[in-house]
Amino acid sequence: MAVGEASFPAMPAIEGIRLGTAMAGIKAAGRRDLVVIELPEATTLAAAFTRNAFCAAPVHVARRHLETEKPRYLLINTGNANAGTGEQGMHDADKSCQALGELTGVAAQSVLPFSTGVIGEPLPVKRLCDALPEALAALSADGWQTAAEGILTTDTRAKGATARLEIGGQTVTINGIAKGSGMIKPDMATMLSFVFTDAAIDDARLQVLLRHAVDDSFNCITVDSDTSTNDACTLAATGRGARIDTDEHESRFAAALTEVLVELAQAIIRDAEGATKFVTLEVEGAATRQEALDVAFTVAHSPLVKTALYASDANWGRILAAVGRAPVPDLDVSRIAIDLGEVALVERGGRAASYTEEAGSAVMAESEITIRIHLGRGDTAATVWTSDLSHDYVSINADYRS
Amino acid sequence: MAVGEASFPAMPAIEGIRLGTAMAGIKAAGRRDLVVIELPEATTLAAAFTRNAFCAAPVHVARRHLETEKPRYLLINTGNANAGTGEQGMHDADKSCQALGELTGVAAQSVLPFSTGVIGEPLPVKRLCDALPEALAALSADGWQTAAEGILTTDTRAKGATARLEIGGQTVTINGIAKGSGMIKPDMATMLSFVFTDAAIDDARLQVLLRHAVDDSFNCITVDSDTSTNDACTLAATGRGARIDTDEHESRFAAALTEVLVELAQAIIRDAEGATKFVTLEVEGAATRQEALDVAFTVAHSPLVKTALYASDANWGRILAAVGRAPVPDLDVSRIAIDLGEVALVERGGRAASYTEEAGSAVMAESEITIRIHLGRGDTAATVWTSDLSHDYVSINADYRS
Repeated sequence: MAVGEASFPAMPAIEGIRLGTAMAGIKAAGRRDLVVIELPEATTLAAAFTRNAFCAAPVHVARRHLETEKPRYLLINTGNANAGTGEQGMHDADKSCQALGELTGVAAQSVLPFSTGVIGEPLPVKRLCDALPEALAALSADGWQTAAEGILTTDTRAKGATARLEIGGQTVTINGIAKGSGMIKPDMATMLSFVFTDAAIDDARLQVLLRHAVDDSFNCITVDSDTSTNDACTLAATGRGARIDTDEHESRFAAALTEVLVELAQAIIRDAEGATKFVTLEVEGAATRQEALDVAFTVAHSPLVKTALYASDANWGRILAAVGRAPVPDLDVSRIAIDLGEVALVERGGRAASYTEEAGSAVMAESEITIRIHLGRGDTAATVWTSDLSHDYVSINADYRS
Repeated sequence: MAVGEASFPAMPAIEGIRLGTAMAGIKAAGRRDLVVIELPEATTLAAAFTRNAFCAAPVHVARRHLETEKPRYLLINTGNANAGTGEQGMHDADKSCQALGELTGVAAQSVLPFSTGVIGEPLPVKRLCDALPEALAALSADGWQTAAEGILTTDTRAKGATARLEIGGQTVTINGIAKGSGMIKPDMATMLSFVFTDAAIDDARLQVLLRHAVDDSFNCITVDSDTSTNDACTLAATGRGARIDTDEHESRFAAALTEVLVELAQAIIRDAEGATKFVTLEVEGAATRQEALDVAFTVAHSPLVKTALYASDANWGRILAAVGRAPVPDLDVSRIAIDLGEVALVERGGRAASYTEEAGSAVMAESEITIRIHLGRGDTAATVWTSDLSHDYVSINADYRS
């Protein structure tokens, strides 16, 4: 199940970047489950990783490799997260990087490994390495959609987004792909997202730009409050295009980058496990961004709000109860207003005088719903996107191991 | 659905306490939904209420009444929470207390109101008041089970617990009833629980005893992380029996009280909405009780852990991922051990060498499961009880408004 229509966008090539996939038999027979992405020399790369203390072996290895070498290859497998796999997991991640390094003539430290899938099973490293030549042979500058398909797990749709902007008379391209459908409450980045640009940006600025864009996109979505062990988002800049070296350039680039990441983040929510609703939670009038996010996520994580959304039931009491238990000190209920779409639900902490069940139900029947919560405490706002909790969510996560 | 067998215990009478019920037509036709509990003069009463900022009108009114008068009556309705009802809700709660006061010849402030049910609908105060004479006519010293049935909402079982102990040659009785099945993540107390004793205990000590017992019982359960607007737990001591006035008496009374509250709290989890599993999370080796609770609740709230429990799937990677995202600073994964029942799952942060899928699956197939998480950070422990996330949970909360 997924919300709304979706088609994979036409993604322009970025000079020097090629993508290849193979069927390694890790995820399922006949499924592309191995992706290699080639980066040109001198590419700078910023990365954001999960803050889960049990982070996966490839996250450790990718972090270590980034400290020593410029990356030349991203090596991604689905079907196995290589998480909770101890020393063997580290060894397996190293081995896969070595194998790709040997085949391509680069140092193993120039390969960044990423894994997604079942936690706690040993990585089938031989099958992975055996399939590397097939993936390398498939490398192509227009392999974006195939690569986006090759990283999916329980996702039902490949997710891509692209933006172009003019910088100093040159066209700058930003292309991103992502995967994620469950275990989605990123705390740095989504499950996996890989973003590329031909712009030339200093290492340190690239990291700042990625961090800000991630904070406003992947860090604002939740399916089920579960932060993955493998979350990672990278932004690679080949430097072959325009140089981003003025504040005006940087601010325009940042806006385009955020746009790409928000589109990918929203695509994850539209394709959330079992989702029948795409829900936007706008919290306004907060004293700080953190308290706006706290209220939004408390509502977004409430199983009772999520099942009411699934039922298209304008059970606003559940929204109100969730706001009331958010970790915000001295919340003055009498200042709170809640709108469901354009319908006023709550005013001054009680049911809005103008509210009718019919008006509320009409909004809830939509597949895309906006809930706007005004706290009356300040001028800060935050937006979080989430999905509903359906029978299919339970089936997807109870009927087989994912 | 509910876990395990349950029968309502034989509850001895407590001198001076009488319980009566009526069908007021608030919850459903033909359902007992109104409960009146009479307390003898000079009863002291301690109370713990929800910390939800959107607390219900009866919570406000009960708090106010406790400040001015000794309570003589508890007035409880199910089917309507009288929460999110603004000024009208306060007026309705006051009116119901006045009506009972007039019928019984006590001040309205000697009546404590409690409501549970749908949030945001006006309390049908006329129907409630019209049924008061019927409830008063039914007052009886052995009305415990009928009263426990009269406060239920989506619960499938009446919940009662009783304990007796000898103090200075006298038998002290503690009787408690409770309701709760969904919107259960109490932050002070459960949905509703009423506990009674014939012991004589000073006001201030009674409050301390209740607080400690609640912290180790109702504050250690969660069904769905949703804290209700109406949570309340009261402990009434008639003072007609033995006086609790030594440390030794108090410590034995505290132990018996905690036993009663834990039994009621566990009964709520066994009867949790859609529950097919009763799960005990024991976190050991924590530096503080708060961090032990943080880890236990993070695991207990994880939809992915809960659906794996429902599926009887020993998907230990999901437990590990939840532990890893708990808000505990500097968690050293390499010290963590996790047992599933008597089966070692995780050792030193990785899958235990001795672990087999068969052994794990055998434990997961049980309806009562203990997950023990050792953090290796200190000597503090905490236990939390929770349920699984099933199709029935979604049906109960999506298929009709509760």
